[in-house]
Amino acid sequence: MNDRDYMALAINLASATEGQTSPNPQVGAVLVKDGQIIGMGAHLKAGEPHAEVHAIRMAGEKAEGAILYVTLEPCSHFGKTPPCSNLVIESGIKRVFVASVDPNPLVGGAGVKKMLEAGIDVQVGLMEEEASALNKVFFHYISTGLPYVTLKSATSLDGKIATVTGESKWITGAEARKDVHQFRHVHDAILVGVNTVIRDNPSLTTRLETGGKNPIRVILDSNLRTPLESGIVNDQAAETIIVTGANAKPESEEQFTELGIEIIKLETDKVGIKDMLKKLGERGITSVYVEGGAEVHGSFLKEKAFQQVITYIAPKLLGGKNAPAAYGGEGIAQLEDTVSLEIIDVKQIGRDIRIISEPV
Amino acid sequence: MNDRDYMALAINLASATEGQTSPNPQVGAVLVKDGQIIGMGAHLKAGEPHAEVHAIRMAGEKAEGAILYVTLEPCSHFGKTPPCSNLVIESGIKRVFVASVDPNPLVGGAGVKKMLEAGIDVQVGLMEEEASALNKVFFHYISTGLPYVTLKSATSLDGKIATVTGESKWITGAEARKDVHQFRHVHDAILVGVNTVIRDNPSLTTRLETGGKNPIRVILDSNLRTPLESGIVNDQAAETIIVTGANAKPESEEQFTELGIEIIKLETDKVGIKDMLKKLGERGITSVYVEGGAEVHGSFLKEKAFQQVITYIAPKLLGGKNAPAAYGGEGIAQLEDTVSLEIIDVKQIGRDIRIISEPV
Repeated sequence: MNDRDYMALAINLASATEGQTSPNPQVGAVLVKDGQIIGMGAHLKAGEPHAEVHAIRMAGEKAEGAILYVTLEPCSHFGKTPPCSNLVIESGIKRVFVASVDPNPLVGGAGVKKMLEAGIDVQVGLMEEEASALNKVFFHYISTGLPYVTLKSATSLDGKIATVTGESKWITGAEARKDVHQFRHVHDAILVGVNTVIRDNPSLTTRLETGGKNPIRVILDSNLRTPLESGIVNDQAAETIIVTGANAKPESEEQFTELGIEIIKLETDKVGIKDMLKKLGERGITSVYVEGGAEVHGSFLKEKAFQQVITYIAPKLLGGKNAPAAYGGEGIAQLEDTVSLEIIDVKQIGRDIRIISEPV
Repeated sequence: MNDRDYMALAINLASATEGQTSPNPQVGAVLVKDGQIIGMGAHLKAGEPHAEVHAIRMAGEKAEGAILYVTLEPCSHFGKTPPCSNLVIESGIKRVFVASVDPNPLVGGAGVKKMLEAGIDVQVGLMEEEASALNKVFFHYISTGLPYVTLKSATSLDGKIATVTGESKWITGAEARKDVHQFRHVHDAILVGVNTVIRDNPSLTTRLETGGKNPIRVILDSNLRTPLESGIVNDQAAETIIVTGANAKPESEEQFTELGIEIIKLETDKVGIKDMLKKLGERGITSVYVEGGAEVHGSFLKEKAFQQVITYIAPKLLGGKNAPAAYGGEGIAQLEDTVSLEIIDVKQIGRDIRIISEPV
């Protein structure tokens, strides 16, 4: 195995922790001496040891003189755990390969600098692209303070989310719907508009065969119209936040808070997307999976407030001038004003297709 | 090379003639003797020699004792050319591999039977699936008398064919639009509704770098509202047919026929899709490429009158409750009533995606 192989292994370890490290990044580390792996690990959960710590602990005294491959720059500050760059220095590691530097503008490069000053040979950039892709959510959150937003929709081949009569169960197949649960699992929060809650009374939980983490449920509800009796308010299956506008009545708010629902009240009458995202970011939510409905998607589109678009397309044609589409609202008036996207992945899932695209 | 390799070559020869043999099928033939190819050919154009004839002519007297690989059963009847099965027998060929039998229920199997009776060793079915796929248009036409219908649309990721203000040029990129011209080239006819003619004044011709055949242009126009001054009526770039309803005024019809436009007048006030397809089939049109607009697509969908759906999807989001989608009309009321499709090909074309699906 060469340097690239060891770093690829570190990236592989990190990628296995998708959905469990938030608000921390996914990081993997491999420690090598005399061509033998003497330690490896990944950061598993916020508050628990970082990847380098696991790897160095596994190696014990053998770490002296070893080479460390780590996907993200070792930290240089005291957080919930002591700085990893100190540990690397103390353990006598002689060489460190870092894939990406820390994206936080306040601390980026400090860990590398510290190790260099201690006489360690530090190489930055090996497989940087692959390592950064792993943490696009974390990097976005750290550099903007806003959650990474994924807009998800599931439509027929002709762009409909329901027939003219409103029938929508199910347009996509079981495999595609299962795939959705994997995305719920890896996002910190799931977001819908109040109309979806009123119409569908959804649970918005993660149902995967191997378990899975329920995202925090966020309801956009400017006038606090969420039914008190809706499942989401009463099932206690996951944390739930209602983001409401200035006109929401305090007595109504209380009814929800008594049921354990968190209310985030904005200063405007209507919930503004960017304002709301700022509050969610401050609340420590690094990623939001937006499931609609059409008005909500239209609002995110209008504000250009999204980092990823996931579109499931079922091989059906529904037709109908009045059958609803996934993105409603006012719409974009001129083609040149729309967000330019790039398709980064197309995959057949069951009988359907999943297209992942990102703004360029 | 083995039997399969020779048949694959015959199929390859046949596939190269896409768009130039209508109303005849695409057929390829390879003649082999002592492990050497002694003749090969494809049917190039209706009225010209069949594939077997080219191959046998190329071989000359060497055809005696040879093995023929042919993608479609040699014909047994006198058409524009004498029966190929006779020629095969006369040339002394000892063995024949046929991929598909003739789909025409009246003549299918007759050529094989004739050759068997003459003492030739005939094997049917080698690479039948691949050979039949080549002639799905022809097989559909021969067995139903109706043209093979392809519904084409080009939309944003959220299913829109234009912004809320009606801007539609261009949603897909140059590569996808070029791909459309390849499909125009291989279809006998291209079809649009009169509203598309009024709104866009399109030429509906094939613009490919290597030339290309213009399809016959068909306009669905129940009340003969096609503007006399429109380009399509005056450019003489291709044959043009207006399909109109019983209420069309004879004096209006005359104005078009004087300009060289063919009028097909149906007996109903409104042009019925199936009725219209029957007339086009009788007119010798084996395939129709339907470019819309939304009402026309909606009509074909309602009548379930299509064999292929080609959807180009551009990585753009346009939004807008009132932005138009590709399939309009009344729409399908219940999900279970829609035509079940299967995705048979997904391809990235430039920055866009092309999805080809077929009813199952």
